Amino acid sequence: MTPSHVDALLAGNRVTLAGYEAKHFGWSVSAKVATVTLNRPERKNPLTFESYAELRDLFRQLAYATDVKAVVIHGAGGNFCSGGDVHDIIAPLIDLPMPELLLFTRMTGDLVKAMRHCPQPVIAAVDGVCAGAGAILAMASDLRMGTARSKLAFLFSRVGLAGCDMGACSILPRIIGQGRASELLFTGRSASGEEGYAWGFYNRLCEPDAVLDEAARLAAELVAGPTFAHGITKKMLHQEWSMSIDEAIESEAQAQAICMSTHDFERAYRAFAAKTRPVFEGD
Amino acid sequence: MTPSHVDALLAGNRVTLAGYEAKHFGWSVSAKVATVTLNRPERKNPLTFESYAELRDLFRQLAYATDVKAVVIHGAGGNFCSGGDVHDIIAPLIDLPMPELLLFTRMTGDLVKAMRHCPQPVIAAVDGVCAGAGAILAMASDLRMGTARSKLAFLFSRVGLAGCDMGACSILPRIIGQGRASELLFTGRSASGEEGYAWGFYNRLCEPDAVLDEAARLAAELVAGPTFAHGITKKMLHQEWSMSIDEAIESEAQAQAICMSTHDFERAYRAFAAKTRPVFEGD
Amino acid sequence: MTPSHVDALLAGNRVTLAGYEAKHFGWSVSAKVATVTLNRPERKNPLTFESYAELRDLFRQLAYATDVKAVVIHGAGGNFCSGGDVHDIIAPLIDLPMPELLLFTRMTGDLVKAMRHCPQPVIAAVDGVCAGAGAILAMASDLRMGTARSKLAFLFSRVGLAGCDMGACSILPRIIGQGRASELLFTGRSASGEEGYAWGFYNRLCEPDAVLDEAARLAAELVAGPTFAHGITKKMLHQEWSMSIDEAIESEAQAQAICMSTHDFERAYRAFAAKTRPVFEGD
Repeated sequence: MTPSHVDALLAGNRVTLAGYEAKHFGWSVSAKVATVTLNRPERKNPLTFESYAELRDLFRQLAYATDVKAVVIHGAGGNFCSGGDVHDIIAPLIDLPMPELLLFTRMTGDLVKAMRHCPQPVIAAVDGVCAGAGAILAMASDLRMGTARSKLAFLFSRVGLAGCDMGACSILPRIIGQGRASELLFTGRSASGEEGYAWGFYNRLCEPDAVLDEAARLAAELVAGPTFAHGITKKMLHQEWSMSIDEAIESEAQAQAICMSTHDFERAYRAFAAKTRPVFEGD
Repeated sequence: MTPSHVDALLAGNRVTLAGYEAKHFGWSVSAKVATVTLNRPERKNPLTFESYAELRDLFRQLAYATDVKAVVIHGAGGNFCSGGDVHDIIAPLIDLPMPELLLFTRMTGDLVKAMRHCPQPVIAAVDGVCAGAGAILAMASDLRMGTARSKLAFLFSRVGLAGCDMGACSILPRIIGQGRASELLFTGRSASGEEGYAWGFYNRLCEPDAVLDEAARLAAELVAGPTFAHGITKKMLHQEWSMSIDEAIESEAQAQAICMSTHDFERAYRAFAAKTRPVFEGD
Repeated sequence: MTPSHVDALLAGNRVTLAGYEAKHFGWSVSAKVATVTLNRPERKNPLTFESYAELRDLFRQLAYATDVKAVVIHGAGGNFCSGGDVHDIIAPLIDLPMPELLLFTRMTGDLVKAMRHCPQPVIAAVDGVCAGAGAILAMASDLRMGTARSKLAFLFSRVGLAGCDMGACSILPRIIGQGRASELLFTGRSASGEEGYAWGFYNRLCEPDAVLDEAARLAAELVAGPTFAHGITKKMLHQEWSMSIDEAIESEAQAQAICMSTHDFERAYRAFAAKTRPVFEGD
């Protein structure tokens, strides 16, 4: 039992999200895996101002969640996400003055930041259309499952915009290489599931009716692992993005020393010594 | 019509290059696509002090060109470029004192900087020999078309030099991965067209007699797009090279807000609403 | 002959390592190629506190070695390395206080730093098990030969730790891409030889009984090259890791100008002019 002054200290840093009732997408938590379902299938699950803001706020809350250790994100009805809704988002943007435009682009960027800053690994299950801001959500995830019919398109140039949306010019080249990323961002062309897999965008290609299950199975596998350490892995993948190798090595020496002082590290050793499988508890 | 004081302000920032008469390579501009032809086919299109300097100056001018929105670079006679001419470049370098050596390496580096700083996407059409400084020109382009018989070789170690030429140790690993880049730069070995395509160096492999046409077609496609936004995409791909993810996301929020205040963004929306194809004008 | 005051200046910077007698692994030097053999095959060549420290010290000495121009590292008995020994390393770590934990993680990180800072290209010949710290040794090498049966696994999450070990979150994504690296580091799953080759981790796949010979042949090829320039290539691949493109280009202009003032550059030119093969001497 933690002493009461520690409880007080931690008050704002411990939340549970299983009971959260999402307004603009589906949300469920089961066995520490949260599932986000983009669910306007009749329009291929576009994003709106409201769903952007709610996703941003929810991913920010995940930093403090004690009952969620991995997140799966997918779309309903055979498509992942068609991006920012033309009517609900693009139309009103046309006439906005600059401060409001920046408010919008910062909000969408803040969603990606929140996805990268929460400690939970985020797994995108991508079937069908994965376009514009939808492609960004997949890119901003940690791991990606695709299908042969996944259509990945960074559509921005098609709507008169630049490819530099929500971190794409920084993140996409590190996933698929600078040359391939340049092509997708300049042309807006669609990449097939096979291409995305060959390029390392998707970690695995699945059958369309299995992609969500496989993402959930991988999430369950991660949840059964040392989840505190996973959060450190994710943080360091983020943190070392633009460090020198020497700085990265020192940062990892510190980060791994933290993990070596956790109970999960000891649990793994005791299990090994006892020839059993370790049961990790995330502390 | 721009007011006269704006004209004055912009005086040095608006040039046309269609009429430019290149001395050391071929140059033509058609429908806003400029084509650079390295044209000493009898020696596989080597570079000389003069062609380096002229290319550097021309790519610097492209930053101000109003009549060029994409660039294709290729070589005459079935080869791309054999690199720095042994007789015209390497021979004189042997005896130069250090300040002049640095003058030379900075000039060649300045060519790559100019290729990366101009707003136009640069597409290399690479057939046959693509070696030494020629490999660098292809690497420094935004997009690359190859052929099965393309021979990519960062030859520097073969002439007693290091692989760190004109940015290769920074740029090549981001295109094809650190391990493959290390091999090419240490050994100087030639990579086949198939390898280059599998590694993401080439965006596409074409038939030798089609590679220039396909590059030109892609250039035309980009020119028909939102060219101001393309220039921003290129700038951000450059600018975010060594930023953290959070810095990159804020930079993109600003850059994309700029693009959202362009006419091309509105044109795209109006066309969508009218169920027509947008006609972009680059402003 | 160098003047005596120069000899004095260089005293601490010139060592020979051919006669070095390694205590915790095999070590031999032949024709300027050093071979490190991890040789506790009955346990798949695990690392111990002692072998870590000795490897670190030896790789640090390589910075001053005049008789070693390339390094091959491999494991005895059909496996590369199984990582940190569970009994010799993990057991004692369990109860260490934080300062000693950090001492350990810094020691292992210092081995990677030493491998990246020595001027010699390091070639890993990887057959069979290549796990945990063994996977790191392969990753920290410049070039990698694998076999179809190579099993690469960044096992850290399996023992309750984070994937951020010895620079993995910084280095692995640049070799195989951010998405694939994330999967290997979060899950600890094993990657096959074919996967590792397709992803650019291995430069080549060899038959198991040929992999050491092929690594030695490549080392010999590099030793026959301009070894001073190779050291500069390696330094710049390291140095430019988190530079901007413009900074990288200026750094390479300086570094290549240094190489242009070496005898090896002149030797290459003279050989070319005489239509012979250059004989490089590394100065």
